[in-house]
Amino acid sequence: MGLNGISFTLAEIAAQLGGDVLGDGQIRIGQVATLASAGEGQIAFLANRKYRNQLQTTRASAVIVSPEFAEGFAGARIVTANPYAYYARLAALLNQAMKANPGVHPSAVCESPVPASASIGPHACIGKNVVLGENVTIQAGCVLGDGVVVGDDSLLYPNVTIYHGCRVGKRAIVHSGVVLGADGFGFAPDGKEWVKIPQVGAVVVGDDVEIGANTTIDRGAMDDTVIGDGCKIDNLVMIGHNCNIGPYSVIAGCAGVAGSTTLGEHCILGGATMISGHLSLAPNTTISGASTVMRSIVEPNGVYASVFPLDTYEHWMRNASHIRRLSKLADRVAELEKALKQKEIEG
Amino acid sequence: MGLNGISFTLAEIAAQLGGDVLGDGQIRIGQVATLASAGEGQIAFLANRKYRNQLQTTRASAVIVSPEFAEGFAGARIVTANPYAYYARLAALLNQAMKANPGVHPSAVCESPVPASASIGPHACIGKNVVLGENVTIQAGCVLGDGVVVGDDSLLYPNVTIYHGCRVGKRAIVHSGVVLGADGFGFAPDGKEWVKIPQVGAVVVGDDVEIGANTTIDRGAMDDTVIGDGCKIDNLVMIGHNCNIGPYSVIAGCAGVAGSTTLGEHCILGGATMISGHLSLAPNTTISGASTVMRSIVEPNGVYASVFPLDTYEHWMRNASHIRRLSKLADRVAELEKALKQKEIEG
Amino acid sequence: MGLNGISFTLAEIAAQLGGDVLGDGQIRIGQVATLASAGEGQIAFLANRKYRNQLQTTRASAVIVSPEFAEGFAGARIVTANPYAYYARLAALLNQAMKANPGVHPSAVCESPVPASASIGPHACIGKNVVLGENVTIQAGCVLGDGVVVGDDSLLYPNVTIYHGCRVGKRAIVHSGVVLGADGFGFAPDGKEWVKIPQVGAVVVGDDVEIGANTTIDRGAMDDTVIGDGCKIDNLVMIGHNCNIGPYSVIAGCAGVAGSTTLGEHCILGGATMISGHLSLAPNTTISGASTVMRSIVEPNGVYASVFPLDTYEHWMRNASHIRRLSKLADRVAELEKALKQKEIEG
Repeated sequence: MGLNGISFTLAEIAAQLGGDVLGDGQIRIGQVATLASAGEGQIAFLANRKYRNQLQTTRASAVIVSPEFAEGFAGARIVTANPYAYYARLAALLNQAMKANPGVHPSAVCESPVPASASIGPHACIGKNVVLGENVTIQAGCVLGDGVVVGDDSLLYPNVTIYHGCRVGKRAIVHSGVVLGADGFGFAPDGKEWVKIPQVGAVVVGDDVEIGANTTIDRGAMDDTVIGDGCKIDNLVMIGHNCNIGPYSVIAGCAGVAGSTTLGEHCILGGATMISGHLSLAPNTTISGASTVMRSIVEPNGVYASVFPLDTYEHWMRNASHIRRLSKLADRVAELEKALKQKEIEG
Repeated sequence: MGLNGISFTLAEIAAQLGGDVLGDGQIRIGQVATLASAGEGQIAFLANRKYRNQLQTTRASAVIVSPEFAEGFAGARIVTANPYAYYARLAALLNQAMKANPGVHPSAVCESPVPASASIGPHACIGKNVVLGENVTIQAGCVLGDGVVVGDDSLLYPNVTIYHGCRVGKRAIVHSGVVLGADGFGFAPDGKEWVKIPQVGAVVVGDDVEIGANTTIDRGAMDDTVIGDGCKIDNLVMIGHNCNIGPYSVIAGCAGVAGSTTLGEHCILGGATMISGHLSLAPNTTISGASTVMRSIVEPNGVYASVFPLDTYEHWMRNASHIRRLSKLADRVAELEKALKQKEIEG
Repeated sequence: MGLNGISFTLAEIAAQLGGDVLGDGQIRIGQVATLASAGEGQIAFLANRKYRNQLQTTRASAVIVSPEFAEGFAGARIVTANPYAYYARLAALLNQAMKANPGVHPSAVCESPVPASASIGPHACIGKNVVLGENVTIQAGCVLGDGVVVGDDSLLYPNVTIYHGCRVGKRAIVHSGVVLGADGFGFAPDGKEWVKIPQVGAVVVGDDVEIGANTTIDRGAMDDTVIGDGCKIDNLVMIGHNCNIGPYSVIAGCAGVAGSTTLGEHCILGGATMISGHLSLAPNTTISGASTVMRSIVEPNGVYASVFPLDTYEHWMRNASHIRRLSKLADRVAELEKALKQKEIEG
């Protein structure tokens, strides 16, 4: 059974999500699983052809396959162009969390009107001039500053903080501990002191964005920091002031994007990547995990890396010491080449 | 005096923590200190033999020493196999924080029964079907989702969030801002869009685990994310969905472990290490700080590193530029070797 | 108009911030802007000489310039030695946030007396023996443990946690999710187990410090962790126990400083830099972003880096594999040099 006892027949599933049912459409499915682990009442999927032999051995009641493998399984199956995305959507159908009951918990402090369809949890604080869409869920301990906007169907988990004037689109999922709209990091040096530059912009988050736990996105200095539609951002990510993250970009955990950097559409930053400030990354750029980007990337669709290769500490010590002499080593090789060439001539 | 005015005689200490008292067992000790800084009423310890000369000069009222150095100090001493661990346990005895008073603060919102021995702070929220053990302390602003379990004697500092269904063992210490059980980062690509994969697993934390401030541990996609007994995790660490962290592992601050990675027992990750997803690290593996691990480690007990050596910016610029030509440099050296060998043959 | 409708004449500005007004001092300014974007009622600034040609084309009502460029602009201007710092101070004047009303929100839980000038937000918790200065603002959901001290004019954004006994100076700005004073990461190994070392020190933050969202600063083991006056710390930074961060140091986002490390005055750590424990960095040391420091730096005023250069994934693969053989490559070059020298001798 799915979460909260949900199940559907294959025919009902196809009616909701599309795809062609081959075999018995009345088979009832309560959960998704891998080909290897699925059992009675479960549907598996083949997303990676290297697992195709498992179609013969799986004990799943049904499978989701692409047309190429439609005949590879004898039992009931749903045929669709993208089995992995189909699985994701079906898993969502089967595992719907119970919707929070609408209403404002008596311990919440609301200084703005709240739609009847919204659910405001215990100890949440809603500032002045806040605009909440329909079916918004604001869980316990969230704090929304004055003038914040949250679009329809968005969900804020407990203890999220959104500073004044920031805007979040529709269908957002914002995880616990996220801070949107803290001051960007801007100071003017004056002798040894640092004079704070007021951060007057805001954070504007598009539709269908998910933001992971304890991630921080700073407000802009003058203009806004912008997160495009459909972006997916993982935990403990830092996005500096005035960044513009292109739509459908994906940023994995512990990554950082320094101020005023622009990512084109559909960029992918691996975990713990660090992007310097004032750069521009072309659309569809992929940065491998733990890499550092210190210059703009103009050519779209590239894949980049910058990781020192792991080795035993002993070997690392030996090799790393040569890095500091690498320029000299190159000079010595050039010298040898010259000497040898001289010898050839003298030959 | 220890915190809250606690003190013990050496005899009382040995009765509680073991070890042999040599000299006057009635000497009263109120605090621990280093050999160099200790004074009247304080006990010092010798854990590192390079400080053994300080035994002659310390003004401590007593010292903790291993049998090897038992005769190196004329005054009162406690002899034990592991003076450093003994010091840690004694420091804990002398510096016990005042236990929070049991009871539920009137501003807390509890939807589950709470044992009489538990202490629930102001504005804490306890969801439905939550099970709390004996002597649990949940400080101000913590939010526990439905079905959460917290074992006996565990302590949650303020503003911790635990999502529905996650379980924490006995004697846990969870610091402020920790988020346990936020959704793992899983999306299926569908054209340019990303379809969310529901995260149906939970987080299961063993006994005697400490988790540092603002660390996040994500819930599993289907199965649980597991933190073994006795693990110690520092601040701002990110542990992805479906990781399995072996018992007694230690993870220092700012480290990240990507999804589905398994650490064997007693691994040590230095600060800011990054471990890619779907890897397996053998037991007792140590990763040096700021290193990146992109492949599994099969051999146990190894020590690894991958840090680019620091240099002045000027030298770094010069050497780093040669990294991009390193493969070509190696080719040129091979070419030289061939040419020289040819010369040898030609004689 | 500035935030909240604030505006001043040039004469009024100079009266408050200094500088010489050239031209019409009655021009009214409501906002700051760049030379390129400024319009009617706005003042721009020239901080970087590469933009000096924009003095001729800007539509700003006035400009802030250094004496060198005082004659480069025909309209009204303010002449000052440091136009960028002047701009920062003027921007602050024009964009003053509305001061929170003094008073304690009825939902706050205060166990200590609060000055009449302080503003305590909803659901904030103030422990016992807490000392708040004048004009302190503690926003919603903040939790201050027993014995905490916060100096005059300091501002804590929502959901900040300060553990017992920690002290914050005057005019501090502490952003949401910050955790000050969680236990330092100290454990004594005892067989496979780790024995917790009590962390009895506190965190002491000087005057004029800003701390970014979700940053954590741990309390000391015995002595305090110290953040000097005028330090500016960005988001998601981790500062370990017993660190001593020199006055006016700047630490950018995602950086980490391991325990017992000392930074001299006015150090600058770029984003995602990692500093090992028990080190000492000389005053005015600058570490380039994403660099790792594993040894002390004795010479002041240096600039350092340690980043593996970014390349396409394909090239990176090719070059990185040679890093592991770098020591051998150096040996081969030495061998070649020897062989060639031998040839010379043999002639």
